[in-house]
Amino acid sequence: MKARVTVTLKNGVLDPQGKAIEGSLAALGFSGIEGVRQGKVFDLELTSTSKEKADEEIKAMCEKLLANTVIENYAVEML
Amino acid sequence: MKARVTVTLKNGVLDPQGKAIEGSLAALGFSGIEGVRQGKVFDLELTSTSKEKADEEIKAMCEKLLANTVIENYAVEML
Repeated sequence: MKARVTVTLKNGVLDPQGKAIEGSLAALGFSGIEGVRQGKVFDLELTSTSKEKADEEIKAMCEKLLANTVIENYAVEML
Repeated sequence: MKARVTVTLKNGVLDPQGKAIEGSLAALGFSGIEGVRQGKVFDLELTSTSKEKADEEIKAMCEKLLANTVIENYAVEML
């Protein structure tokens, strides 16, 4: 079973990396960009065949390792 | 207009970061993980109101800055 976890910064948390990308895009001549926020994505491959069990396990992985829940949100998507 | 760009490593490209995460998850007691690949996600906010124009512009951004198309794939999703 495959799953995708998307980890993004919470609203209000400063994102200097995103700001730098925004600046670089502007320097390259792309106009009309109001904001860029960068996040992470994890593509997991699991042996589990039960969707519910996998979902639960992935949430535990996010809480423990994949996301810093103080400043980040995560979303799990089964593929 | 909001868009999300997801950049992932192409198949066959080594992903030491993903391997490290896989090892860490195993060390934390999560079993049944066959593979982890890490990618990046960019949330863009554009002033453009035309979906077609925005899509074209974002593709140019990916080719020029956001993705290394030699080793990475990108996907654009309008939100």
